[in-house]
Amino acid sequence: MISAPIRQVAEAARTASRILAKATAAQRAAALHAIAEAIVADDGLAAANARDLEAASALAPAMRDRLRLDVGKIVTAIREVAALPEVLGNVEKRETRPNGLAIERVRIPLGVVLMIYEARPNVTTDAAALCLKTGNACILRGGSEATHTNRALAACVARGLVAAGLPATCVQLVEGREAIGELVKLDELIDLCIPRGGEGLIRYVAEHARVPVIKHYKGVCHVYVHAAADLALAVQIVENAKVSRPGVCNAAETVLIDRAVAEQFVPMLVAALPQVELRGDDTAVALGVATRATEDDWAAEYLDLILAVKVVDGLASAIAHIERYGSSHTEAIVTRDAAAAEQFLRDCDSSTVLVNASTRFADGGELGLGAEIGISTTRLHAYGPMGAEGLTTTKFVVRGTGQLRS
Amino acid sequence: MISAPIRQVAEAARTASRILAKATAAQRAAALHAIAEAIVADDGLAAANARDLEAASALAPAMRDRLRLDVGKIVTAIREVAALPEVLGNVEKRETRPNGLAIERVRIPLGVVLMIYEARPNVTTDAAALCLKTGNACILRGGSEATHTNRALAACVARGLVAAGLPATCVQLVEGREAIGELVKLDELIDLCIPRGGEGLIRYVAEHARVPVIKHYKGVCHVYVHAAADLALAVQIVENAKVSRPGVCNAAETVLIDRAVAEQFVPMLVAALPQVELRGDDTAVALGVATRATEDDWAAEYLDLILAVKVVDGLASAIAHIERYGSSHTEAIVTRDAAAAEQFLRDCDSSTVLVNASTRFADGGELGLGAEIGISTTRLHAYGPMGAEGLTTTKFVVRGTGQLRS
Repeated sequence: MISAPIRQVAEAARTASRILAKATAAQRAAALHAIAEAIVADDGLAAANARDLEAASALAPAMRDRLRLDVGKIVTAIREVAALPEVLGNVEKRETRPNGLAIERVRIPLGVVLMIYEARPNVTTDAAALCLKTGNACILRGGSEATHTNRALAACVARGLVAAGLPATCVQLVEGREAIGELVKLDELIDLCIPRGGEGLIRYVAEHARVPVIKHYKGVCHVYVHAAADLALAVQIVENAKVSRPGVCNAAETVLIDRAVAEQFVPMLVAALPQVELRGDDTAVALGVATRATEDDWAAEYLDLILAVKVVDGLASAIAHIERYGSSHTEAIVTRDAAAAEQFLRDCDSSTVLVNASTRFADGGELGLGAEIGISTTRLHAYGPMGAEGLTTTKFVVRGTGQLRS
Repeated sequence: MISAPIRQVAEAARTASRILAKATAAQRAAALHAIAEAIVADDGLAAANARDLEAASALAPAMRDRLRLDVGKIVTAIREVAALPEVLGNVEKRETRPNGLAIERVRIPLGVVLMIYEARPNVTTDAAALCLKTGNACILRGGSEATHTNRALAACVARGLVAAGLPATCVQLVEGREAIGELVKLDELIDLCIPRGGEGLIRYVAEHARVPVIKHYKGVCHVYVHAAADLALAVQIVENAKVSRPGVCNAAETVLIDRAVAEQFVPMLVAALPQVELRGDDTAVALGVATRATEDDWAAEYLDLILAVKVVDGLASAIAHIERYGSSHTEAIVTRDAAAAEQFLRDCDSSTVLVNASTRFADGGELGLGAEIGISTTRLHAYGPMGAEGLTTTKFVVRGTGQLRS
C-alpha cells in the first residue's frame, strides 16, 4: 500500500532527524545562513518561478499572486528564523523529589514533520527554516502549480544543508497527489503532519491520516460590539478585521451587535463599509442592512468582502452564538466595560480571544511567536498560531544516585 | 454510521464541558469531595465488585487482582487529585508587543476526553477525578469484566457532581465494543482519546480514530550498564527495573552491557537474578547466560520475568540499539562518568531518560505530576507520563486599546 520510494523518503527523514537532533545550535544556524546564501546566489530561481507563473496564466490573479516568489522576502524570513531564540535544550521545569531524584523537562525536537500546502512557494523555505531551527527533519509536499519554483528552492536548501555538514535529507520535497495519502499513514516514521490550504485538502488529510495532524479547517471569526463599546472604534475594528485582507483566515466573517446599541451602530456600519456586502438578521435588515442572511451565513467563511451581521441580546448570547457557529479560531469584543471584557476573554473558548483589537492580530508574528508554521483549532499540542515551540516537545530527564522503587 | 445514543452521549459531554469550563475551582473541588463521600457512603459497591469477581472466577489470578476494588485507595486518590495545585487560568506567558497589545497564554481545559481502558475499575474514578480537576468532561469506556463495579462507581460520581451543582453528564460511562469504534470518529465533539490497556486495544483505537489519540503501544525499556558503572549498583538497578513489578510498562525488558565490563558483570547478573530467564547474545551466552536470544527478543515487551541481555560496544552502540528496537518509553544508564551520563541523557530520545536510577520511576506520581492519566510515546502534546497539565491547553488572550493591523 505504501510505495517503496515514499517509504524511503520517510525513512531517510527519520535518519536525518536523529542526526539533526544531535547537531548543535551553531550548526543549525549555519545551515540556515548557508541556505539563505544559496538562494541569493541562485540565478535560476527567477526563471523557475517565471515558468510556473506562465503555466498559471489562466488562473485568477489572486492565485498567480500567491505563486509569485519574492526572493528578498524569503531570504529575510530565513535569517529572522535563524535569529530566533534557541528553544532546544531549554529546561522547562526542574524539581528534586523527596527521594533525591532530580527531574527536568527538557525541550527536544518532534522528529519528522510533514508539511502539505498549496500554491505559495514561500512556505517551502519558511517551513524548512522553522523545522531546521527546531531540529526537525521535514518532508514538504507543495502545490503542483509551484513545482519548478519549489524544486529550485529545495535545491538551494539542500546546498545549504550540505555546506553546513548536515544531510540534504533533512529537508525533502515530494510531488504527486498519491504521496499525500501514503505519507500520512506512516505514523512510525512521521511525528506530525501540518496541512495548510483549502478546507478540501485539510479534510482529505484529516480523514486519511494515522500521523497526528495539526490543522484548522476554517476561520469563522467574530467581532462582538458590546453595549458599552466605543462605537467609532468598533467601526474601525470591524472594518480592519474584514477589509484589510478579506481572503485570510483571521478576517472577520460575522459581526455580533448588542441590541442596546444596534439602532445606533448598524447605520454607522452600513455607512462605513459601502464596499462590503452585509447580510443581516431581521433586526439588522430593519436598521438598514440590504441583504437578509440565511442560516448558512452564520457558519460561512466568506474569504471575501461579505460580512454577516447579527443583533444579539448581550454577552451570553454572543458567546452562545460563537460556540454554535464559530470555528474556535479568533473572536474579538469591543467594549469599554472591563468586567464584560474579562468575562468574554474567560468564557469564549476560541484559540485567540481579543478585546478592543482587530481579529487580524491572530498571527504568529503579531502574537510574538517570531514565525508561524500554522494555526491550530484542535486543542491538542497547539491551539491558535503555532511557532517554533510548537515544533518541539519535552522529555523527562532524571538524574539519580542509585534510587530504586519500592 | 454513528448510532443516535452514542452521538447523544458525545453531545451531552460537549454541553457539560462548556458548563464545567466556566465552573470555579471551588466548585470543581466540591464535586471531587462529594464524589469521595458518595463512594464512602455507598454500601452497594462491595457487592457490585463481588459480582464482577465472581463472574471472573475462571480468569487468571493477576487479572482478578486488577478487578478487585480497594475503596480506601480510590477515595484517597480522589482527595489527592482535589488537593493538586490548580492549573486552569494559569498564565503561562505574558508579553506586551511594541504596538501595546498585551498577550497572555492562559491555561484552559481540553474539553471532552474519552478514556478507553480494560479491567481495572480504579481507572473509572482516577480518570473522572483528573478530568474534573482540569475542567474536562469525560466519557469512560471501561472493561466489560468490571461492568457492575464501574456502574456503581459511575453512580457515585453522578451523585457527587449533582451535589456540587454540576451536570451528571460531566462524567458518562458507556458500554459495548461498538461504542469505541463510533466514539473515536467524533472529532467535532471529542477532543482527546486515551486508550489504556493491551497493545491490541490500542492499535484498534489508533487505526479507527479521527479524534487525536495519546497512547503508548508498549514499553520496551532498557538499562545500559556503562563501562564506568558501579557494577553492584547496576545489578540493583537492573533487578529493581525487572523484578519489582515485571508486568508493567516501565519494567526493563533488555539490559545492554558495555563490552568493557561484560566479563565481570554478566556473571554477577546471572547470580543475582536466578528467578529471571535471561536471553543473551553470543557474548552473554559465552559468559554464562543460559538461553540464546533471537532477533525478536530485542523488540519484546515480556511483561514477565524474562530479560534480554546484549553486549554493546560503548555508548553510541547502546543508543543505536535503543533507537532501533526501543519504544521511546524509558531508558536508564548506570555510570559514574558524568560526561557519559549527560551524553546519554541528551542523545537518547525516549520520553523518560534516567541516570543511576530504576526505569520504574517513569510514572506520573514518581516524576512529580501528582497523578497520571496515561503515558505517551507519541511526541505530540505529551511525551512520557501525562498528568493534570496534559489534560489542558492554552489559548491566546489579547488585551488591546484599539489596535488595528496595517
